[in-house]
Amino acid sequence: MMTKQDQLDDLPPVAANGLLDRRLFMKSLALGGVGTLAAPVLANPVGEGQLPWLLAPGQGAQSYGSPSNYEQLARRIDPPGLWPEGNTIAGSSSAYTPHQGLTGTYTPSGLHFEINHHGIPDIDPDRHTLVIHGMVDRPLKFTTETLDFYPTVTRSHFMECSGNSWLLWEDEPGDLLLDESHGLLSGSEWSGVSLAALLDEAGVQAEGKWIIAEGADSGTLSRSIPMEKAMDDSFIALYQNGERLRPGQGYPMRLYNPGFEGNTSVKWLRSLRVTDRPAMTKFETANYTDLMPDGKALQFSLKLEVKSVITRPSNATVLPKKNAVYEVTGLAWSGSGRIRKVEVSADGGATWAEAELQGPVLPIMLTRFRLPWRWDGSPAILQSRATDETGRVQPTRTQLLDARGKHGHYHYHAIHSWGVDANGGIAHVYA
Amino acid sequence: MMTKQDQLDDLPPVAANGLLDRRLFMKSLALGGVGTLAAPVLANPVGEGQLPWLLAPGQGAQSYGSPSNYEQLARRIDPPGLWPEGNTIAGSSSAYTPHQGLTGTYTPSGLHFEINHHGIPDIDPDRHTLVIHGMVDRPLKFTTETLDFYPTVTRSHFMECSGNSWLLWEDEPGDLLLDESHGLLSGSEWSGVSLAALLDEAGVQAEGKWIIAEGADSGTLSRSIPMEKAMDDSFIALYQNGERLRPGQGYPMRLYNPGFEGNTSVKWLRSLRVTDRPAMTKFETANYTDLMPDGKALQFSLKLEVKSVITRPSNATVLPKKNAVYEVTGLAWSGSGRIRKVEVSADGGATWAEAELQGPVLPIMLTRFRLPWRWDGSPAILQSRATDETGRVQPTRTQLLDARGKHGHYHYHAIHSWGVDANGGIAHVYA
Repeated sequence: MMTKQDQLDDLPPVAANGLLDRRLFMKSLALGGVGTLAAPVLANPVGEGQLPWLLAPGQGAQSYGSPSNYEQLARRIDPPGLWPEGNTIAGSSSAYTPHQGLTGTYTPSGLHFEINHHGIPDIDPDRHTLVIHGMVDRPLKFTTETLDFYPTVTRSHFMECSGNSWLLWEDEPGDLLLDESHGLLSGSEWSGVSLAALLDEAGVQAEGKWIIAEGADSGTLSRSIPMEKAMDDSFIALYQNGERLRPGQGYPMRLYNPGFEGNTSVKWLRSLRVTDRPAMTKFETANYTDLMPDGKALQFSLKLEVKSVITRPSNATVLPKKNAVYEVTGLAWSGSGRIRKVEVSADGGATWAEAELQGPVLPIMLTRFRLPWRWDGSPAILQSRATDETGRVQPTRTQLLDARGKHGHYHYHAIHSWGVDANGGIAHVYA
Repeated sequence: MMTKQDQLDDLPPVAANGLLDRRLFMKSLALGGVGTLAAPVLANPVGEGQLPWLLAPGQGAQSYGSPSNYEQLARRIDPPGLWPEGNTIAGSSSAYTPHQGLTGTYTPSGLHFEINHHGIPDIDPDRHTLVIHGMVDRPLKFTTETLDFYPTVTRSHFMECSGNSWLLWEDEPGDLLLDESHGLLSGSEWSGVSLAALLDEAGVQAEGKWIIAEGADSGTLSRSIPMEKAMDDSFIALYQNGERLRPGQGYPMRLYNPGFEGNTSVKWLRSLRVTDRPAMTKFETANYTDLMPDGKALQFSLKLEVKSVITRPSNATVLPKKNAVYEVTGLAWSGSGRIRKVEVSADGGATWAEAELQGPVLPIMLTRFRLPWRWDGSPAILQSRATDETGRVQPTRTQLLDARGKHGHYHYHAIHSWGVDANGGIAHVYA
């Protein structure tokens, strides 16, 4: 009779260094446990009655639940280095999503990344209004309550700061966990009101080509949005993952521009002014521009690139056993639409195998990929490479640096590499 | 030139009392605002600089974000009446999802409903194990860390307590908000490990037809699961909405049986014992059975029915204006698969119009429906009726009572009715 180990030895790899066919888990799910990752039980299997939580009832339900105190990974960090020394902008802070401890495709709202340039305003929704004005026929003012009576849209989208992975522009790969390297990325189900519906009601005049969106934070952060985008798929988000936006996400309302860099989705939105030209605010001139090798800067490079990263295994864990089958899984996303395919390499990009995509694959949303990998105990370099439905392919680090130079801070989206050593240790490497 | 009001008057209803074609919002989104729900602006549109949050920067980001203190709807209630007078079960508590304040299809984990029969154990994951034993060839013990190395599944599913809507068995329709009437229902993205994979590894013997699932709460709550279900689509849930399960949801692991009544998805799962017969535990004999008109009780009626409810408008709000177009929206779900269609009536069930379903429509998941409705100011009764892909149709209240009698406590799934009065006030009614 064929043992499971025999069956495993019989599996032909689909790429070098042990990558196996993506349908393997569907055919024989139990292979993941080959080699007794689980412990055998001989007697008294559930006799641990001395555990304290079995002896007396615990607490009742909270009015709003929270994670276990044992879950130290369910915390957002504000890593050093983002805000320059001597930063005098009061209230500037950030919070990075800890992808090393998460899975699935949605991010809990409490762990959604945040960058707050001027603090988080504590807005009384009854005193907050949104005004649409400028080059319109009928300037209009909306309250949160008014917007709640409008026809709603609900869409699952990722949000990414164009500064996500900014530390990967550095010459050395740094000992970075996934929150530090890819934590300015999150996925949510957003609900709100179509911006086109509101603009239609206000009546945009022919010369209105841009919209200046302004927030109600103390710095009134402002960004210029092309009218074409606003009329296409932008919306006023009122809810995130079912509940009202949280203060750090723009409560009671924010602009949401699917697939555009996160800073354009202005939080605490108070004003949409229709104009014939962009406002050239600080956040589209001094910040959020791309310095190119020739010394010029790309401006209004708003649409996010195609990108992916392996979230497990990562340097937050150690592979416990050689010659076992592991799942390689991660996230892929593109500002241009759906992910078409994700390939995984275990040999630093020499050979590739196509991963399984978890459905439904939604446009401009995080897409989870999975591939079985038999680790034989030798060093390996794990990578993922995403392709979106427009044909955009995630570049290698070398390709990205060749195209954009080394002075970048934003829009880093190259292939990411995990180096696995012979002991199962994992490190962030450039390859 | 045709005004918007003319266009509105020109729209033929698709059912009585003002129900409009579901494609209306797609063709002309702005119609929702006809009649100046928004206020016109004459001068100084954004000149409210005295608002305190515009004058000084607010706080920085928290390590784990939370809702605004202004959001009093983002709270779960533990309504009176669920636990009988003189209840002596220590730790019993519940928490109901406030659907009157939510939208979309996913429920924030902190607002997911809970029923805790013996308190919430505060489990140290490093001391928790799951044992598979009984009629198996190889009894196995799993830690959380072990399970993390198994191939994972991620699925979006609703969870419903079979006691959801238990108050609607009462003779009078009670002044119930949606949390009280439908709050034992929530939707999440769950991730974990296929139960079939683990059972395959343990080797289920031929006589093994049931699995007794036992939790690590102080009452070791136990339920019997048919082997056919366990092998079909059950899984060990480790993550909810991207992060680890919360304590009230079974941290560090729970069983998840898609489409089955929530109590079977045993929380704090510590033991899966394979047997040849069900255990006849308290929760499948004294509780969670259906007393029929002939005095006998249905047992193991595990699969949830097809059901729907309008979440907006509801009795949490008042319609502010006559002769405006409103969106009627709500949730539909079925334990048997996908929702095929939802119909809406504005005249208490005499005429019906098909609602728009928000895609992607996923199996055994909350599905949001929407339909435009022109309220002319006269009294109306709003209802929704769901049909699933197997052809099951949500019954009227009369049909349900005729079939099951009046002694029920579980599995209430009849059509729900909102009565709208001439002032826009809304009440829960039987119709």
